[in-house]
Amino acid sequence: MKFNIIKTDRSARVCLIETERGKINTPVFMPVGTVGTVKAMSPEELKEMGAEIILCNTYHLYLRPGHEVVSSLGGIHKFMNWDRTILSDSGGFQVFSLSALRRIEENGVHFKSHLDGSMHFIGPKEAMEIQSSLSSDIAMVLDDCTPYPSSYEYAQESLERTIKWAAECKRLQKAGQALFGIIQGSLFEELRRRSAEELVDMGFDGYAVGGLSVGEPKEEMHKMIYFTAPLLPPDKPRYLMGIGDLKDVLIAVETGFDMFDCVMPTRNARNGTLFTSKGKISIKREEFRSDRGPLDPDCECYTCRNYSRGYLRHIFLSKEILSMRLNTIHNLYFYFNFFRNMRKSIIEGIFTEFKTKWEAIL
Amino acid sequence: MKFNIIKTDRSARVCLIETERGKINTPVFMPVGTVGTVKAMSPEELKEMGAEIILCNTYHLYLRPGHEVVSSLGGIHKFMNWDRTILSDSGGFQVFSLSALRRIEENGVHFKSHLDGSMHFIGPKEAMEIQSSLSSDIAMVLDDCTPYPSSYEYAQESLERTIKWAAECKRLQKAGQALFGIIQGSLFEELRRRSAEELVDMGFDGYAVGGLSVGEPKEEMHKMIYFTAPLLPPDKPRYLMGIGDLKDVLIAVETGFDMFDCVMPTRNARNGTLFTSKGKISIKREEFRSDRGPLDPDCECYTCRNYSRGYLRHIFLSKEILSMRLNTIHNLYFYFNFFRNMRKSIIEGIFTEFKTKWEAIL
Repeated sequence: MKFNIIKTDRSARVCLIETERGKINTPVFMPVGTVGTVKAMSPEELKEMGAEIILCNTYHLYLRPGHEVVSSLGGIHKFMNWDRTILSDSGGFQVFSLSALRRIEENGVHFKSHLDGSMHFIGPKEAMEIQSSLSSDIAMVLDDCTPYPSSYEYAQESLERTIKWAAECKRLQKAGQALFGIIQGSLFEELRRRSAEELVDMGFDGYAVGGLSVGEPKEEMHKMIYFTAPLLPPDKPRYLMGIGDLKDVLIAVETGFDMFDCVMPTRNARNGTLFTSKGKISIKREEFRSDRGPLDPDCECYTCRNYSRGYLRHIFLSKEILSMRLNTIHNLYFYFNFFRNMRKSIIEGIFTEFKTKWEAIL
Repeated sequence: MKFNIIKTDRSARVCLIETERGKINTPVFMPVGTVGTVKAMSPEELKEMGAEIILCNTYHLYLRPGHEVVSSLGGIHKFMNWDRTILSDSGGFQVFSLSALRRIEENGVHFKSHLDGSMHFIGPKEAMEIQSSLSSDIAMVLDDCTPYPSSYEYAQESLERTIKWAAECKRLQKAGQALFGIIQGSLFEELRRRSAEELVDMGFDGYAVGGLSVGEPKEEMHKMIYFTAPLLPPDKPRYLMGIGDLKDVLIAVETGFDMFDCVMPTRNARNGTLFTSKGKISIKREEFRSDRGPLDPDCECYTCRNYSRGYLRHIFLSKEILSMRLNTIHNLYFYFNFFRNMRKSIIEGIFTEFKTKWEAIL
């Protein structure tokens, strides 16, 4: 994996990541393809709107269909018909957020499947084996995602595990698969600093910040973003995990983060909440009943070029599959367009103006 | 609307219908776009697989979003972004099959909406007004769909209404919109004959046969198909309503029917039942878990060219929207391909061989 900084504007930066499967222009938004499909989208639609990398969830694919099945079907790319870059998470966050029951041990975590209640165990060894079976381009270390709120003692203990597991994952890294470390430490600066230092010493291909957006107040989250970014080496990609509210993205990009993933645009789309150049709208509103205009007159996506708000409202209320499709196309297009324009503003040295403009809209 | 017979093979025939919106090669399959979308499909996908005409349901569109709304959004074509031919049914069949409560009077039918329980009335005047508001290319007369079983007396009484309503619809026909009559008469040959004679006298742009596939035994249905087809004028399109089981289609085409609609390929797709050149399969079957092969090695649809049975099984079990999309693409492609090959066999004078071959598979 190659990484080059193309342009900086204060701490904000435009970079180019190159994997065997193509180029990734950062700051980049990675749509979430949980079980091996970005919900409601075809791979061709994602490419058309400019997706260069997507994320898949190890936890989900491990439980169903099973990583051996994905492997026997030719690996995650062939499996889901996506030939560009794929980042797999380690499963740590989903074990933390989805499984009904979990028991953390020094060597890993026992958990109960949210699908059928069966018991499973994932440690660093298993996380690396699963991601190797999937054949993702970028793997993540298994981390212990510290819940909010946590005491300093618990957060420290949890961080020890994350550091130990990270070292183990690093040791097991396979040639041809990039591996990112994950910074934890809850809201404690001292722990975040230590986490970053230890991981940077291990020498990963990129660094992620986890354990944010887990229930803490926004100001606390923003403080941690500002605090953590400068701890990460500038010559490697910086990935802020699970954060995709564009207001938070603006702050994170300002501090020098490069990679983002979030289910917000796709999930909101399925709920009828749509992003526009004037702010969010709910498509089910009565006022759109006979509205002949497009969702967003400033948008050039397939949905806005071909369908009226009245029609979009109708198929949403009728629970039609096409509604999920058209809404998702629009929201993802909005995100990709936002990121494209954000990169442009950094290249032109006017990121601050871009940020100010959008903070008023979002 | 122009209609030309291109080639006959005994009673089977290949014809060309031309509307202002394009050509329709028959025998033709019309996908059902109930509320203004063929479930799970985009208009572009339908065109790519060769759809030349689709059907929309007046009953559904009348209740939601309302025909005035469709009209104010530019009519059904602009509404749903489909610029090819659209046939609207009259609502008669859905009133019969979906509404919780209905009271038939001489001038029309009172019924309760299946959506919200509200009461409505549709007579021939209303059916023509609604279809005119929708601006479909081909409208259908309002018929009284006789239930199965019915006594001769009831079927006769019901048929009288259908004939009376047909005459009223004919009187109200608008320039620029074709209108098809609907033959009823339950399973009574005498009534079917009388129905056909009266309607042919009125002079419609095409003739449909309704009231079949409503619960009667298959042999009875087939008898009625054989009996009714020769009663219809050869110089007009013949439409067998709601029938799309391909075994039945083969019989109907043999007798000279031209047009078919059915939810079977799309509904089956969403339930995981897929048509192949070797017969139907259920994609959820355990044996497909790690199956790298395509659904149907003889199929060239997007789904078969790009995805394995193992992946299709996985996303079906995961209830992913892409599963509905890929399955629907495959089943509709199968239908269009079947109809394409059927037309070819008629042109080559080998329809009987085509029929015999497929009867063994289906």
